[in-house]
Amino acid sequence: MSIANKLKQMGIELPAVSTPEAAYVPFVQSGNMVYLSGHIARKNGKPWTGKLGAELNTKDGQQAARSVAIDMIATLQAAAGGDLDRVQRIVKIMGLVNSTPDYTEQHLVANGCSELLGEVFGNKGLHARSTFGVAALPLDTCVEFDLIAELRN
Amino acid sequence: MSIANKLKQMGIELPAVSTPEAAYVPFVQSGNMVYLSGHIARKNGKPWTGKLGAELNTKDGQQAARSVAIDMIATLQAAAGGDLDRVQRIVKIMGLVNSTPDYTEQHLVANGCSELLGEVFGNKGLHARSTFGVAALPLDTCVEFDLIAELRN
Amino acid sequence: MSIANKLKQMGIELPAVSTPEAAYVPFVQSGNMVYLSGHIARKNGKPWTGKLGAELNTKDGQQAARSVAIDMIATLQAAAGGDLDRVQRIVKIMGLVNSTPDYTEQHLVANGCSELLGEVFGNKGLHARSTFGVAALPLDTCVEFDLIAELRN
Repeated sequence: MSIANKLKQMGIELPAVSTPEAAYVPFVQSGNMVYLSGHIARKNGKPWTGKLGAELNTKDGQQAARSVAIDMIATLQAAAGGDLDRVQRIVKIMGLVNSTPDYTEQHLVANGCSELLGEVFGNKGLHARSTFGVAALPLDTCVEFDLIAELRN
Repeated sequence: MSIANKLKQMGIELPAVSTPEAAYVPFVQSGNMVYLSGHIARKNGKPWTGKLGAELNTKDGQQAARSVAIDMIATLQAAAGGDLDRVQRIVKIMGLVNSTPDYTEQHLVANGCSELLGEVFGNKGLHARSTFGVAALPLDTCVEFDLIAELRN
Repeated sequence: MSIANKLKQMGIELPAVSTPEAAYVPFVQSGNMVYLSGHIARKNGKPWTGKLGAELNTKDGQQAARSVAIDMIATLQAAAGGDLDRVQRIVKIMGLVNSTPDYTEQHLVANGCSELLGEVFGNKGLHARSTFGVAALPLDTCVEFDLIAELRN
């Protein structure tokens, strides 16, 4: 099944790619590798705010992480010229969780992103990952992820 | 115009590349890609210290970020054997902002670095970026950036 | 001397590669590059917990960082099909230090990892590095590192 059909089957509609401020771009391709900028969580189009361990709990964070995965797939689609089947491998993701100093479930939060990538891309979605708790994120968002993927020609 | 002339026109003089402690090196090239180590902000040769949201404000952070961009260009010049015109693309930067838990303008701080790269390298300077707030930085510096670039032979 | 013999000479025994939760994998290879997931510090098989600047001091952190380097070498061995002599270059490491807001010796902690890589791999172990202090880490571990290496065929 194509990735586009898989997304449809899962009931996932990709958003328009949000254009960051002019100082940088949503992705850069170099050779076969595409590097995605950090994607902050959004809810109803606005920053999804709050700290894990304070306003938000692990389940909230997982949902936010899942939503970022969807936004990153939309960016990947743009990077792949509209054809997600050109994604050869999700290589690496970095998961940043806006955390109080005593919150220690960043890995569970990041699973919200990792699992969606696995569901959508299958074995090609199996990625390396680094996850950690940050003191603060732009616009007080709760999670941010970036991603490196390999595309085929 | 060559990048060297562009820098001269902008009144930017590149510093000597600071050699990190012996345990690691300022950059590593692998294939066409060059990976720069994290560059901490310096002012008059000393660590540029302070936290955003406490001792420093967004404008301070932007100036520090701009100064790190200049230091990274000096390292890129060394990586490119002295010829900055061999920089094919600034691929990705990571911007670390030493932040209090309630400071949320990391993206504006990082623009100080991104914008300088854009001014110097033009379209080749358009990069992907991840920016976030860290609890602390080595030597209490206010910002740290690393960078991945593609070189041509 | 082979890397395997070098490790034996140093009295270092590589652990079994810990399999992360099913949502991601310990490493992904793309072309000649291998990307390692974040490796958290472990002591006697359990998470090595605590914050630098609070429960742990710089020397503790260095020991934890050294132990992560050994774990990453075990993962590299798996990535290289059992032959560490296929590691052409340690390209980049990222060192995350679980820090109180006023702890500023992250670079010294990370040397515990960098120096071991240098001892084991010699010039091929000379890497680029980014190190910073994070607000929190998964399972309250004290340090986490990831790594990018180049393999030869």
